[in-house]
Amino acid sequence: MNDIDMVMQNAREAFDSFKLLSSSDRSSFLQAIAAQLEAAREVLVQTAHEETNLPLPRLNGELSRTTNQLALFARLIEEGSWVEAAIDTADKNRTPPKPDTRKMLLPVGPVVVFGASNFPFAFSTAGGDTASALAAGSSVVIKGHSAHAKTSQQVFEAMQKAITKAGVHPYTIQHVLGSGSTVGKALVQHPYTTGVGFTGSFSGGRALWELANQREQPIPVFAEMSSINPVVLLQHTLQENTTSLAKTYAASISLGMGQFCTNPGLLLAVKSDALDQFLTLLGREIEQIVPQKMLHGGIQASYIKGLNEALSQKGIEKIAQSARQPAEGEAFPTVARVNAAVFMQNPHFREEVFGPYSLAVVCADKAELMAVLQSLKGQLTTTIMATDADIAANADIIELQTTLAGRIILNDVPTGVEVCASMVHGGPFPSTTDGRFTSVGTTAIKRWVRPVCFQGFRDSMLPDALKNSNPLHIWRIVNNEYTKNAI
Amino acid sequence: MNDIDMVMQNAREAFDSFKLLSSSDRSSFLQAIAAQLEAAREVLVQTAHEETNLPLPRLNGELSRTTNQLALFARLIEEGSWVEAAIDTADKNRTPPKPDTRKMLLPVGPVVVFGASNFPFAFSTAGGDTASALAAGSSVVIKGHSAHAKTSQQVFEAMQKAITKAGVHPYTIQHVLGSGSTVGKALVQHPYTTGVGFTGSFSGGRALWELANQREQPIPVFAEMSSINPVVLLQHTLQENTTSLAKTYAASISLGMGQFCTNPGLLLAVKSDALDQFLTLLGREIEQIVPQKMLHGGIQASYIKGLNEALSQKGIEKIAQSARQPAEGEAFPTVARVNAAVFMQNPHFREEVFGPYSLAVVCADKAELMAVLQSLKGQLTTTIMATDADIAANADIIELQTTLAGRIILNDVPTGVEVCASMVHGGPFPSTTDGRFTSVGTTAIKRWVRPVCFQGFRDSMLPDALKNSNPLHIWRIVNNEYTKNAI
Repeated sequence: MNDIDMVMQNAREAFDSFKLLSSSDRSSFLQAIAAQLEAAREVLVQTAHEETNLPLPRLNGELSRTTNQLALFARLIEEGSWVEAAIDTADKNRTPPKPDTRKMLLPVGPVVVFGASNFPFAFSTAGGDTASALAAGSSVVIKGHSAHAKTSQQVFEAMQKAITKAGVHPYTIQHVLGSGSTVGKALVQHPYTTGVGFTGSFSGGRALWELANQREQPIPVFAEMSSINPVVLLQHTLQENTTSLAKTYAASISLGMGQFCTNPGLLLAVKSDALDQFLTLLGREIEQIVPQKMLHGGIQASYIKGLNEALSQKGIEKIAQSARQPAEGEAFPTVARVNAAVFMQNPHFREEVFGPYSLAVVCADKAELMAVLQSLKGQLTTTIMATDADIAANADIIELQTTLAGRIILNDVPTGVEVCASMVHGGPFPSTTDGRFTSVGTTAIKRWVRPVCFQGFRDSMLPDALKNSNPLHIWRIVNNEYTKNAI
Repeated sequence: MNDIDMVMQNAREAFDSFKLLSSSDRSSFLQAIAAQLEAAREVLVQTAHEETNLPLPRLNGELSRTTNQLALFARLIEEGSWVEAAIDTADKNRTPPKPDTRKMLLPVGPVVVFGASNFPFAFSTAGGDTASALAAGSSVVIKGHSAHAKTSQQVFEAMQKAITKAGVHPYTIQHVLGSGSTVGKALVQHPYTTGVGFTGSFSGGRALWELANQREQPIPVFAEMSSINPVVLLQHTLQENTTSLAKTYAASISLGMGQFCTNPGLLLAVKSDALDQFLTLLGREIEQIVPQKMLHGGIQASYIKGLNEALSQKGIEKIAQSARQPAEGEAFPTVARVNAAVFMQNPHFREEVFGPYSLAVVCADKAELMAVLQSLKGQLTTTIMATDADIAANADIIELQTTLAGRIILNDVPTGVEVCASMVHGGPFPSTTDGRFTSVGTTAIKRWVRPVCFQGFRDSMLPDALKNSNPLHIWRIVNNEYTKNAI
């Protein structure tokens, strides 16, 4: 038995124990993890700062987001209605007699979570994938990201304290380090693994997805991969809000040195004097952005490579770069422009350049702008910047955007993702492998479960969520009516 | 532009129109289809009888199931809460300000439905896949099954009348015939296709799933493929209900000449005198079953081939076959037995033999019975036949069964699938390609949608399901509370 076999054997044993815990006990466990992370805050944030170059305020904010996320899932499962309980009672007088059938969502088995390079807390070891999988009742094996391995280990140690404190099975959460192409591959291929969460590059996510599909029993891989988050800037708002738009978007493009999956990488507008003025102002803002170190050398190198490749394409015109030349390891905030006709002919422009870079696509008219939108692949987000007059004249653009992404934003920036019940952080391929699910917000829990129907079961045999008396006081669909009533 | 290009172009245009219909109008359209099918009942049932050899009462029942299913989806979308509307209102005083986010399920695009050989109505042209996809707001392209092409064409003509009557886009439903490996393949590969429904063989379903995964933009394939539906017979019920169990299971095994995906193909029990007596009685019942024609020559030929292969395996013992030798095209109802140790060593025994055949696996003890269950692949159903005393002593078996299938049945037969909110007709791979969804019951609609989040939208721009006033009067999650209230 090799190491990964041992880890997955442990994960399976832990699952068989952990899935039997009451929602209330699982909820307390999530709260205990949050408390241990808070207790270790100072050390965690300092370690992450050293490993990722991210500033302390950002890391403190991200850790709060992480513990709030755990608390949100704790409340979700404490309330309990997320299991989608549905009950159809028997009718013995029907011909043929109608049986009693009751359905709910149940966890499937051990889940493997890959830490993300760009969020050492919120999308890594104790991040949204882990929190949602634990909430669902899965055991979790975390493959820590090598770029912040120490942080990952420390987060894991905090979680281990919570495991001890809550008295759950010791292998409910496990942590492994190693290369994606060996350890990661072995985890995805292991027969006990039943689901995978990943946030990272298209090539990485797609490789895991293909491995999972090649298994004798394929399993779902929820990989959030790449998105350029097109922003449509309409005519009136460009005229009326030129300066504030330029400030807002310069800030969004360079926020966290552009290292967000929701970074606005593409700005679309119809040519006009106002657009030219906006782009000039945007350039001036970008010039003032001070380069900062990116997460690690690899990401910085691939940003520089991607940026140079983009800027060497025929027909592209650099608008501006940070006035201060970047030092070693630093990003070089940059904006450029290209005509839509050129954009449409070169698929390279549709690829993500991960970092503080955005490309403005200048369209001859609205028809061309819609053609550009139609040529794009699936996205996490798409944004429309518009006045009321713009909105009234461009319902067709908004309708088209609705087909393109998981989240459609009016008059705001795509960076910033709320953790709530109505969030969709997911979108059509290739922004994720499965646009039917979200990796942020309470419904992220739905990734780790499947529905099971119990037919003709005695009340005492049923899970609490399906018992006649509704002991969990959850919302259920009983004979096609939403109700909290007992039967 | 070839034929399939034209069909999918039409389907896309129809989708862009059909998705804008109100739920109420879509609901009326589903009712109109049901009405047209009822109006054509006599002809439809007669044609299906000629094409499939299925008896008229069964076909009349299946057509009723089909129209009831359309009516069920009509009511579901008329009620409207299935869209999972979730709203989190803005909080401008928070730092940073919290935006207004609202989410609901929206249809994705044209859906391709493959007719099933064994259900000319309920799982074919106007069956559950089509009904659920139309309910979701998708346009549908049906690939009619060649074994009942005339029936399929007539069902389509009835649906065309409903299209005219309801005034929906003429290409909302289209119908094509042809081979799976050419026409079917082209449909799955077409860039405008966004989802596929299929009920049939493992090889057919898996081939479509692989085609869909090889696309530049992969799409979901919901294929219901193969299942042997293990039934566990426990000690006390075998002793107390020997005769009735034998009668019940002989009927279930041979119902519709075994041509159900939920046919009980595997009977598991611990060796005992009662088991021997049950198997003897089961054999006597099977001897009395009169062979009937199977759906078509191909299915009959592969049943005979599969049966002969099964019966030629080392260690298998034939219990009984129908006393009347089958005539040309007829099935040969058969039961056999094998010891668990032999079963475990030969993976052939775990393959489905589609037809009126069931294999009893005789286990040395409970541990061996659990080992047999653990060795099985994912199933649509698994059943436990048990007295109260049996249940009390075998909670571990039932727990294990819960991990194996989409539906767990106590003291009933797996054949017979209710169309209701709590049904799960789906299960872990390879019973389906995606055990997270069901192809029967109201939640089958969830296969054709994805969640979309609208951030910062003005009320007038939002879909009705998300407007402040809740004009559709649906259940929504508003700031984490289930409510029908306006905001």
